Amino acid sequence: MSNQKLIRTLRCKNRKFIGVLSKLISTISQMGGDIGNISTVSFGELHNIRDITIIVNDEDHLSAIVSAVRKIPEVELESVIDEVLELHQGGKLLIRPKLPIQSIEDLRKVYTPGVASVCKLLKEDPSQIEVYTTIGKTVGLCTNGSRVLGLGNLGAAASMPVMEGKAALFQQFSGLHMMPVLIDTLDVQRFVDTVETISPTFAAIQLEDIRTPDCYEIEDQLIRRLKIPVMHDDQHGTATVALAALINACRVGGIELKNASVGQIGLGAAGSAIANLIMKYTGNPVYGTDVNPEAKKRFEGLGGIVTELKDLLKKCQVVVATTGLPGLIKAEDVQKGQVILALSNPFPEITITEALAAGAAFASDGSRVNNLLGFPGIFRGAIEAKALRFTPEIFIAAALAIVGQTPEQELIPDPLDPLVHGAVTKAVAKAAVQARVTRDFLK
Amino acid sequence: MSNQKLIRTLRCKNRKFIGVLSKLISTISQMGGDIGNISTVSFGELHNIRDITIIVNDEDHLSAIVSAVRKIPEVELESVIDEVLELHQGGKLLIRPKLPIQSIEDLRKVYTPGVASVCKLLKEDPSQIEVYTTIGKTVGLCTNGSRVLGLGNLGAAASMPVMEGKAALFQQFSGLHMMPVLIDTLDVQRFVDTVETISPTFAAIQLEDIRTPDCYEIEDQLIRRLKIPVMHDDQHGTATVALAALINACRVGGIELKNASVGQIGLGAAGSAIANLIMKYTGNPVYGTDVNPEAKKRFEGLGGIVTELKDLLKKCQVVVATTGLPGLIKAEDVQKGQVILALSNPFPEITITEALAAGAAFASDGSRVNNLLGFPGIFRGAIEAKALRFTPEIFIAAALAIVGQTPEQELIPDPLDPLVHGAVTKAVAKAAVQARVTRDFLK
Repeated sequence: MSNQKLIRTLRCKNRKFIGVLSKLISTISQMGGDIGNISTVSFGELHNIRDITIIVNDEDHLSAIVSAVRKIPEVELESVIDEVLELHQGGKLLIRPKLPIQSIEDLRKVYTPGVASVCKLLKEDPSQIEVYTTIGKTVGLCTNGSRVLGLGNLGAAASMPVMEGKAALFQQFSGLHMMPVLIDTLDVQRFVDTVETISPTFAAIQLEDIRTPDCYEIEDQLIRRLKIPVMHDDQHGTATVALAALINACRVGGIELKNASVGQIGLGAAGSAIANLIMKYTGNPVYGTDVNPEAKKRFEGLGGIVTELKDLLKKCQVVVATTGLPGLIKAEDVQKGQVILALSNPFPEITITEALAAGAAFASDGSRVNNLLGFPGIFRGAIEAKALRFTPEIFIAAALAIVGQTPEQELIPDPLDPLVHGAVTKAVAKAAVQARVTRDFLK
Repeated sequence: MSNQKLIRTLRCKNRKFIGVLSKLISTISQMGGDIGNISTVSFGELHNIRDITIIVNDEDHLSAIVSAVRKIPEVELESVIDEVLELHQGGKLLIRPKLPIQSIEDLRKVYTPGVASVCKLLKEDPSQIEVYTTIGKTVGLCTNGSRVLGLGNLGAAASMPVMEGKAALFQQFSGLHMMPVLIDTLDVQRFVDTVETISPTFAAIQLEDIRTPDCYEIEDQLIRRLKIPVMHDDQHGTATVALAALINACRVGGIELKNASVGQIGLGAAGSAIANLIMKYTGNPVYGTDVNPEAKKRFEGLGGIVTELKDLLKKCQVVVATTGLPGLIKAEDVQKGQVILALSNPFPEITITEALAAGAAFASDGSRVNNLLGFPGIFRGAIEAKALRFTPEIFIAAALAIVGQTPEQELIPDPLDPLVHGAVTKAVAKAAVQARVTRDFLK
């Protein structure tokens, strides 16, 4: 089974009879295709042409749906369009002058001779660098592409679409800039040296899609070496959003997270960070399990209790899974009243329907637990407060801000809502000051 | 003497009498201030308020002009505004999403799950990276700030205003992107390793503001190691524009450059590259002089003939100076009919007026010989042709394209004219194919 879903657009020419569109939709849905947008391309006398966006599991699933659609006599499938690929043409980012240069006088101001006086000022007073350059509003997004989504080690260049997507989202939701930098090495030391050497370009560093255990060592070293905040989003960004989702899930499920027994299945970058943040939040140890002995050892070092999968499922009221193993949690192992977040994407350890049918008080998958809820506000808040590093308290404050923005009975708020990012920003800035990790405290 | 001019705006409240503005302008001009834009802030019953942009040599010069303006009875100097600094607030670049993300469906296309299929495609077929990411249209602008303008070693961060200016101009005139990367090291090997490690992010590398002799070694190593074009703009960009100016100057001065004796005063990064490109263009050796023995030795290695300053001025029909030493060329050493380009900026080795008075057939300074004429088209042309490296023939083609766009009797064309950059782009792309340095020839 492929481990990533596909998005395609079916351009369908439908005979103008009542019920044709509904028949088409129902055919797709019944075959397990998720329906996205439906847009009308043209209204004709005898036919309407419509673009129907569908999300499918893989190429075979797509072929099966296409065949089924072709069998509907009133529908002519004109084409199967890969809109995602079309949208990626030429990339997803732009680097632009803030103001157009229209005259020789403009040129003399943005470039020579005018620029020289600004450079001299910055040399004499480096505190002005954040005022008069883009450095103060730019986060470097550094990856070697060694663990991209669930796809493994694709290498730095092939990971660029993910990086551009994050940078685009970051700009839109924080108002600041994010610049992807592809670090072409699997050597931990060379990665760290490279990021350190280019670090004056940025106000903060976001690490992304780096395999374990390299990601821990890289993050640790960069935090020690740099005087700007550094965060591996796959760890702490994910943990922040997962903690928010878990707090909300427990509320809906009628469990008080701070008093509950919590189990974490999968102790990779995301899982161990989630468990760690839960422990910082509740003050209690979390049960954890993984197949990797190193991961288990590291988890014990964080204060967790290693146990077996069956045992964990039996004794924990709250269970989070981040294993990448679809169907790992069997219905018969689900406990009555349990809260289950099966976060592996796009195929969870147990589906919501199965978990609820087996007696879970609340269940969700990872499709809505989106990192986008975290990183824009986390970085903007840290930069506004002039924080030099992150702490668990900051991530907890961010999670609680997300909780505060969540509508009743929902797992998480809409990640496209700018108010969410504003709330995270404020909470992070405040927490950074309280944690005394800002420039005024740490010189 | 400061070695960089200042730009300031004088906000003047003038009594509404005929002749007041003219008196104000004449006062500033007579004191050696260059007048830039004059804009009207308000027309009143008794007074008009105008902003007058002036370019002055240094702070003392500014003070003298301010005092003189204050003595004009009909003028009240309201404020002296540093518009350059104001314009630099928050930096000069923006990094933006190409399209706004407005719906969950947009999010699923630009980010997960849609992006996964694009990443997989790029992993399977790396030739698609330039199609589906911004890598194919982004030039990395790499500097350590060790020789910024005429200001010396400012360090990487203080050079950012220059880098942002170049990146802004590059985007406007090439349509591509330029991303400044500050490389925080004076160690040649670490610089090279760092740029190599991040190079998959870019379609080409422009090196900038690196001191000699490090710039030669860094450029050589990167050209050898990378499979994308690498150019140190202070060498080859400057040489390209200077060659164009020189060809035009010789035409106006009635000299045929290919048959003339040519002398280069100052054999630093710019000077040695200019001399080298002239030699490649004419096929004849150039005379050169410098105070630095290493620079002279390197120049001989390029095929130049080292001589003394007096001797050079005596025997060369065409003289180019890039020393950073104002007034180095004395009027009595100028030969009748000589063509002189005294390029040190902003204070030339000899002023145009002095050189012409001393009998030069044509003279110019560096104020209009702007690198901006070269680098946008040079990189766009190389990227369009999929060139893997630059050659002197490519730079000569670019210079001739600039010559072709120069109005009659002028030294160079307007650098803000987009047609110039289009012509350079075409010429470079064609020359790269002819030089067989494109990907199709070099695998």
